[in-house]
Amino acid sequence: MSFRDELTRVCESVEGGVLCTLMSFDGIPVDTFEREEESARLNAQTLLAEIANAANQLNTALVNGGFGAAGEFTVNLKECAVVIRPITHEYFIALALAQGGNFGKARYLLRIAAPVLQEQL
Amino acid sequence: MSFRDELTRVCESVEGGVLCTLMSFDGIPVDTFEREEESARLNAQTLLAEIANAANQLNTALVNGGFGAAGEFTVNLKECAVVIRPITHEYFIALALAQGGNFGKARYLLRIAAPVLQEQL
Repeated sequence: MSFRDELTRVCESVEGGVLCTLMSFDGIPVDTFEREEESARLNAQTLLAEIANAANQLNTALVNGGFGAAGEFTVNLKECAVVIRPITHEYFIALALAQGGNFGKARYLLRIAAPVLQEQL
Repeated sequence: MSFRDELTRVCESVEGGVLCTLMSFDGIPVDTFEREEESARLNAQTLLAEIANAANQLNTALVNGGFGAAGEFTVNLKECAVVIRPITHEYFIALALAQGGNFGKARYLLRIAAPVLQEQL
Protein backbone atom coordinates (compact mmCIF):
# COMPACT_ATOMS: atom_id res chain seq x y z
CA MET A 1 0.00 0.00 0.00
CA SER A 2 1.40 3.42 -0.97
CA PHE A 3 1.73 6.36 1.43
CA ARG A 4 -1.16 8.07 -0.34
CA ASP A 5 -3.40 5.01 -0.01
CA GLU A 6 -2.75 4.80 3.73
CA LEU A 7 -3.27 8.57 4.26
CA THR A 8 -6.50 8.43 2.24
CA ARG A 9 -7.75 5.44 4.21
CA VAL A 10 -7.11 7.19 7.54
CA CYS A 11 -8.67 10.52 6.48
CA GLU A 12 -11.75 8.89 5.01
CA SER A 13 -12.26 6.69 8.09
CA VAL A 14 -12.68 9.64 10.46
CA GLU A 15 -15.82 11.73 10.62
CA GLY A 16 -14.69 15.27 9.88
CA GLY A 17 -11.29 14.27 8.45
CA VAL A 18 -10.01 17.11 6.22
CA LEU A 19 -6.33 16.41 5.60
CA CYS A 20 -3.94 13.59 6.42
CA THR A 21 -0.26 14.03 5.75
CA LEU A 22 3.10 12.36 6.17
CA MET A 23 5.41 15.30 6.79
CA SER A 24 8.95 15.99 7.92
CA PHE A 25 9.38 18.15 11.02
CA ASP A 26 10.69 21.00 8.89
CA GLY A 27 7.12 21.30 7.53
CA ILE A 28 7.62 19.75 4.08
CA PRO A 29 5.08 17.05 3.20
CA VAL A 30 6.16 13.66 1.79
CA ASP A 31 2.61 12.88 0.73
CA THR A 32 -0.83 14.24 1.56
CA PHE A 33 -4.47 13.38 1.09
CA GLU A 34 -6.90 16.25 1.50
CA ARG A 35 -10.53 17.11 0.89
CA GLU A 36 -9.49 20.09 -1.17
CA GLU A 37 -12.32 22.55 -0.65
CA GLU A 38 -12.49 22.07 3.10
CA SER A 39 -8.70 21.97 3.45
CA ALA A 40 -8.32 25.26 1.53
CA ARG A 41 -11.04 26.89 3.62
CA LEU A 42 -9.24 25.95 6.85
CA ASN A 43 -5.79 26.69 5.36
CA ALA A 44 -4.89 23.28 6.75
CA GLN A 45 -1.48 22.89 5.03
CA THR A 46 -0.18 26.13 6.53
CA LEU A 47 -1.69 25.32 9.90
CA LEU A 48 0.04 21.94 9.94
CA ALA A 49 3.39 23.45 9.03
CA GLU A 50 3.07 25.93 11.95
CA ILE A 51 2.17 23.18 14.40
CA ALA A 52 4.91 20.88 13.06
CA ASN A 53 7.48 23.58 13.69
CA ALA A 54 6.30 24.09 17.28
CA ALA A 55 6.10 20.32 17.89
CA ASN A 56 9.64 19.92 16.62
CA GLN A 57 11.01 22.62 18.92
CA LEU A 58 9.11 21.18 21.87
CA ASN A 59 10.34 17.66 21.11
CA THR A 60 13.93 18.89 21.10
CA ALA A 61 13.38 20.60 24.47
CA LEU A 62 11.72 17.48 25.91
CA VAL A 63 14.51 15.17 24.76
CA ASN A 64 17.18 17.58 26.06
CA GLY A 65 15.27 17.84 29.36
CA GLY A 66 15.32 14.05 29.80
CA PHE A 67 11.58 13.57 29.23
CA GLY A 68 11.98 11.59 26.00
CA ALA A 69 10.31 12.36 22.68
CA ALA A 70 6.56 12.90 22.65
CA GLY A 71 4.34 10.14 21.27
CA GLU A 72 1.55 12.52 20.28
CA PHE A 73 0.63 16.20 20.15
CA THR A 74 -2.85 17.62 19.72
CA VAL A 75 -4.05 21.19 19.23
CA ASN A 76 -7.70 22.19 19.32
CA LEU A 77 -8.68 25.39 17.54
CA LYS A 78 -11.99 27.11 17.02
CA GLU A 79 -12.54 25.67 13.54
CA CYS A 80 -10.52 22.48 13.60
CA ALA A 81 -8.36 20.10 15.58
CA VAL A 82 -4.97 18.65 14.68
CA VAL A 83 -3.43 15.38 15.87
CA ILE A 84 0.29 14.80 15.26
CA ARG A 85 2.03 11.48 15.85
CA PRO A 86 5.81 11.32 15.34
CA ILE A 87 6.88 8.24 13.38
CA THR A 88 10.63 8.78 13.41
CA HIS A 89 12.88 11.65 14.58
CA GLU A 90 12.33 13.22 11.18
CA TYR A 91 8.79 12.37 10.14
CA PHE A 92 5.29 12.47 11.57
CA ILE A 93 1.78 11.65 10.47
CA ALA A 94 -0.87 14.30 11.09
CA LEU A 95 -4.59 14.59 10.67
CA ALA A 96 -6.63 17.80 10.57
CA LEU A 97 -10.27 17.48 11.59
CA ALA A 98 -13.11 19.93 11.05
CA GLN A 99 -14.78 21.12 14.26
CA GLY A 100 -17.05 18.40 15.61
CA GLY A 101 -15.01 15.62 13.97
CA ASN A 102 -14.27 12.41 15.83
CA PHE A 103 -11.16 13.36 17.81
CA GLY A 104 -10.85 10.05 19.64
CA LYS A 105 -11.04 8.02 16.45
CA ALA A 106 -8.45 10.30 14.82
CA ARG A 107 -6.01 9.60 17.66
CA TYR A 108 -6.72 5.87 17.44
CA LEU A 109 -6.27 5.62 13.67
CA LEU A 110 -2.98 7.55 13.71
CA ARG A 111 -1.68 5.19 16.38
CA ILE A 112 -2.53 2.23 14.15
CA ALA A 113 -1.21 3.85 10.96
CA ALA A 114 2.13 4.94 12.44
CA PRO A 115 3.90 1.53 12.36
CA VAL A 116 2.47 0.81 8.88
CA LEU A 117 4.02 4.02 7.51
CA GLN A 118 7.20 3.57 9.52
CA GLU A 119 7.85 0.25 7.78
CA GLN A 120 7.71 1.98 4.41
CA LEU A 121 9.99 4.90 5.30
CA MET B 1 -13.67 28.38 46.25
CA SER B 2 -9.95 29.23 46.12
CA PHE B 3 -7.67 28.44 43.17
CA ARG B 4 -6.05 25.70 45.24
CA ASP B 5 -9.40 24.11 46.09
CA GLU B 6 -10.41 24.00 42.42
CA LEU B 7 -7.02 22.64 41.29
CA THR B 8 -7.16 19.99 44.02
CA ARG B 9 -10.69 19.00 43.07
CA VAL B 10 -9.73 18.56 39.40
CA CYS B 11 -6.54 16.61 40.11
CA GLU B 12 -8.21 14.29 42.61
CA SER B 13 -11.14 13.63 40.28
CA VAL B 14 -8.96 12.14 37.51
CA GLU B 15 -7.49 8.67 37.73
CA GLY B 16 -3.74 9.17 37.40
CA GLY B 17 -3.82 12.92 38.14
CA VAL B 18 -0.37 14.02 39.35
CA LEU B 19 -0.31 17.81 39.16
CA CYS B 20 -2.86 20.51 38.37
CA THR B 21 -1.69 24.09 38.02
CA LEU B 22 -2.89 27.56 37.14
CA MET B 23 0.12 29.04 35.38
CA SER B 24 1.07 32.05 33.30
CA PHE B 25 2.42 31.38 29.82
CA ASP B 26 5.89 32.47 30.95
CA GLY B 27 5.96 29.27 33.02
CA ILE B 28 5.40 30.77 36.50
CA PRO B 29 2.62 29.08 38.52
CA VAL B 30 -0.09 31.12 40.27
CA ASP B 31 -1.13 28.10 42.31
CA THR B 32 -0.56 24.35 42.09
CA PHE B 33 -1.81 21.15 43.61
CA GLU B 34 0.44 18.13 43.22
CA ARG B 35 0.87 14.64 44.53
CA GLU B 36 4.39 15.41 45.64
CA GLU B 37 6.17 12.09 45.32
CA GLU B 38 4.77 11.25 41.90
CA SER B 39 5.17 14.83 40.66
CA ALA B 40 8.84 14.91 41.72
CA ARG B 41 9.47 11.54 40.07
CA LEU B 42 8.05 12.81 36.77
CA ASN B 43 9.66 16.26 37.18
CA ALA B 44 6.20 17.54 36.33
CA GLN B 45 6.77 21.23 37.22
CA THR B 46 9.69 21.51 34.81
CA LEU B 47 7.86 19.53 32.14
CA LEU B 48 4.88 21.89 32.36
CA ALA B 49 7.07 24.97 32.10
CA GLU B 50 8.66 23.54 28.91
CA ILE B 51 5.29 22.74 27.37
CA ALA B 52 3.85 26.11 28.43
CA ASN B 53 6.68 27.89 26.65
CA ALA B 54 6.08 25.92 23.43
CA ALA B 55 2.31 26.38 23.67
CA ASN B 56 2.78 30.12 24.09
CA GLN B 57 5.01 30.39 21.02
CA LEU B 58 2.61 28.28 18.99
CA ASN B 59 -0.37 30.33 20.13
CA THR B 60 1.35 33.52 19.00
CA ALA B 61 2.07 31.95 15.59
CA LEU B 62 -1.52 30.70 15.28
CA VAL B 63 -3.02 34.08 16.15
CA ASN B 64 -0.64 35.89 13.78
CA GLY B 65 -1.49 33.33 11.06
CA GLY B 66 -5.21 34.07 11.43
CA PHE B 67 -6.11 30.70 12.96
CA GLY B 68 -7.13 32.15 16.33
CA ALA B 69 -5.85 31.07 19.73
CA ALA B 70 -5.90 27.38 20.57
CA GLY B 71 -8.54 26.11 22.96
CA GLU B 72 -6.45 23.15 24.12
CA PHE B 73 -3.03 21.53 23.72
CA THR B 74 -2.10 18.00 24.70
CA VAL B 75 1.25 16.22 24.72
CA ASN B 76 1.62 12.50 25.34
CA LEU B 77 4.97 11.26 26.59
CA LYS B 78 6.25 7.85 27.57
CA GLU B 79 5.63 8.34 31.29
CA CYS B 80 2.88 10.90 31.38
CA ALA B 81 0.44 13.07 29.46
CA VAL B 82 -0.20 16.79 29.78
CA VAL B 83 -3.39 18.70 28.94
CA ILE B 84 -3.22 22.50 28.71
CA ARG B 85 -6.26 24.74 28.41
CA PRO B 86 -5.72 28.48 28.00
CA ILE B 87 -8.04 30.55 30.21
CA THR B 88 -6.94 34.02 29.14
CA HIS B 89 -4.15 35.34 26.90
CA GLU B 90 -1.87 35.20 29.94
CA TYR B 91 -2.96 32.19 31.97
CA PHE B 92 -3.78 28.53 31.47
CA ILE B 93 -4.82 25.55 33.54
CA ALA B 94 -2.86 22.34 33.06
CA LEU B 95 -3.04 18.81 34.31
CA ALA B 96 -0.27 16.23 34.25
CA LEU B 97 -1.37 12.60 34.26
CA ALA B 98 0.65 9.49 34.96
CA GLN B 99 0.76 6.98 32.11
CA GLY B 100 -2.52 5.08 31.96
CA GLY B 101 -4.46 7.95 33.55
CA ASN B 102 -7.88 8.94 32.26
CA PHE B 103 -6.98 11.33 29.43
CA GLY B 104 -10.55 11.92 28.29
CA LYS B 105 -11.73 12.81 31.77
CA ALA B 106 -8.76 15.16 32.21
CA ARG B 107 -9.76 17.06 29.07
CA TYR B 108 -13.38 17.18 30.20
CA LEU B 109 -12.62 18.43 33.72
CA LEU B 110 -10.29 21.19 32.47
CA ARG B 111 -13.01 22.37 30.09
CA ILE B 112 -15.42 22.62 33.02
CA ALA B 113 -12.88 24.21 35.39
CA ALA B 114 -11.68 26.88 32.94
CA PRO B 115 -14.66 29.27 33.27
CA VAL B 116 -14.73 28.78 37.07
CA LEU B 117 -11.07 29.88 37.33
CA GLN B 118 -11.51 32.60 34.72
CA GLU B 119 -14.17 34.25 36.89
CA GLN B 120 -11.72 34.46 39.78
CA LEU B 121 -8.78 35.86 37.78
